[in-house]
Amino acid sequence: MTERTRIRRIPEKAVTEVAALHRVLDAAKVAHVAFVHDGAPVNIPVATARDGSRLLLHGSTGSRLFRTLASGVGVCVTVTLLDGMVLARSAFESSMHYRSAMVFGIPGEVSEVADKLVALEAMTEAWMPGRWATLRAPLAKELAATMVLELVLDEWSVKISDGDPDDPPEDLDEPVWAGVLPITTSYGVPVPAPDLRGGPPVPPYLVDWTS
Amino acid sequence: MTERTRIRRIPEKAVTEVAALHRVLDAAKVAHVAFVHDGAPVNIPVATARDGSRLLLHGSTGSRLFRTLASGVGVCVTVTLLDGMVLARSAFESSMHYRSAMVFGIPGEVSEVADKLVALEAMTEAWMPGRWATLRAPLAKELAATMVLELVLDEWSVKISDGDPDDPPEDLDEPVWAGVLPITTSYGVPVPAPDLRGGPPVPPYLVDWTS
Repeated sequence: MTERTRIRRIPEKAVTEVAALHRVLDAAKVAHVAFVHDGAPVNIPVATARDGSRLLLHGSTGSRLFRTLASGVGVCVTVTLLDGMVLARSAFESSMHYRSAMVFGIPGEVSEVADKLVALEAMTEAWMPGRWATLRAPLAKELAATMVLELVLDEWSVKISDGDPDDPPEDLDEPVWAGVLPITTSYGVPVPAPDLRGGPPVPPYLVDWTS
Repeated sequence: MTERTRIRRIPEKAVTEVAALHRVLDAAKVAHVAFVHDGAPVNIPVATARDGSRLLLHGSTGSRLFRTLASGVGVCVTVTLLDGMVLARSAFESSMHYRSAMVFGIPGEVSEVADKLVALEAMTEAWMPGRWATLRAPLAKELAATMVLELVLDEWSVKISDGDPDDPPEDLDEPVWAGVLPITTSYGVPVPAPDLRGGPPVPPYLVDWTS
């Protein structure tokens, strides 16, 4: 733990096991990546996937911001999952259930072709399990147009809020319902591409994602 | 539009109507707020709500990071909603449906009690419509412990990705299913607080949130 990953505010919500970090990161497909550009903060959403003890990010070599990310800048990558609304007896105690992870570091570029393929497979399989093996191999021009970054999971913090409403005793007789309204995220019905040819069926691995 | 809100990368995904900005912000309950602290980027999740042409943020006066936010620092507030997975015929063309908004500015503190109450009501009603009127009024000590910030929606950009897979002609005969897998977020069954007394029923406005 470093000075900037020590959770000062509501420290009882801090979680320090690396397994908890992995669970939060694995549950997210998008991270918000903050860095300093021309002296000002920039905060971009980036598709993300954990691969062992590193976080993978990828973008286009044509993206100015992504090239900046690969230039050795410090980042703060934050992932937040919203799990519910906490309805307390007062507005003050009302809150939300969430899981959040923050990772600090300097991303490194994955530039060797073999390493890049490993990273792209890990990302595709994290987002779309089972799909990589069904797709044609990436083309050389596609690899050249894709920038892959890795951020070692070294300096990080995790905060989880999952408790019941925490009203003080004097509020417990307020004539208002209190509790938690869970928020769930799920996949809907797959929508075939308009230009789908030859009628390949919805692949069986999709069922695993949606169930 | 300023130099830093001009979308260079895939500019056809840029949306410039303010109504679109409002829709994206209104669909989100949490924003990621990036700022520079001791020379390094920090990126914190903050509950957020739009109120007219300003974005409201609130936190504890006991939070060091939140006090920093109120000290006149520049921020980049980003909101991202993930709407689906785009399964193209190649990993390269595979992507996600999303709506994202980025707002730059310097947050100002809402410090007058009357203004703070207006802001707290707007936030509570944005997150839990119908609930504010059923709650007791905030106490003076609660108001004193709550810091409210407003960020004027002046410098911003919105990017929306909602198209079909965009495979090149030579990939259309790949023997793989292609399409979009929508992602939906919904409320689950309300869970009463363990210390709920007197049996107040689940309030009718909750049904409106969940339907």
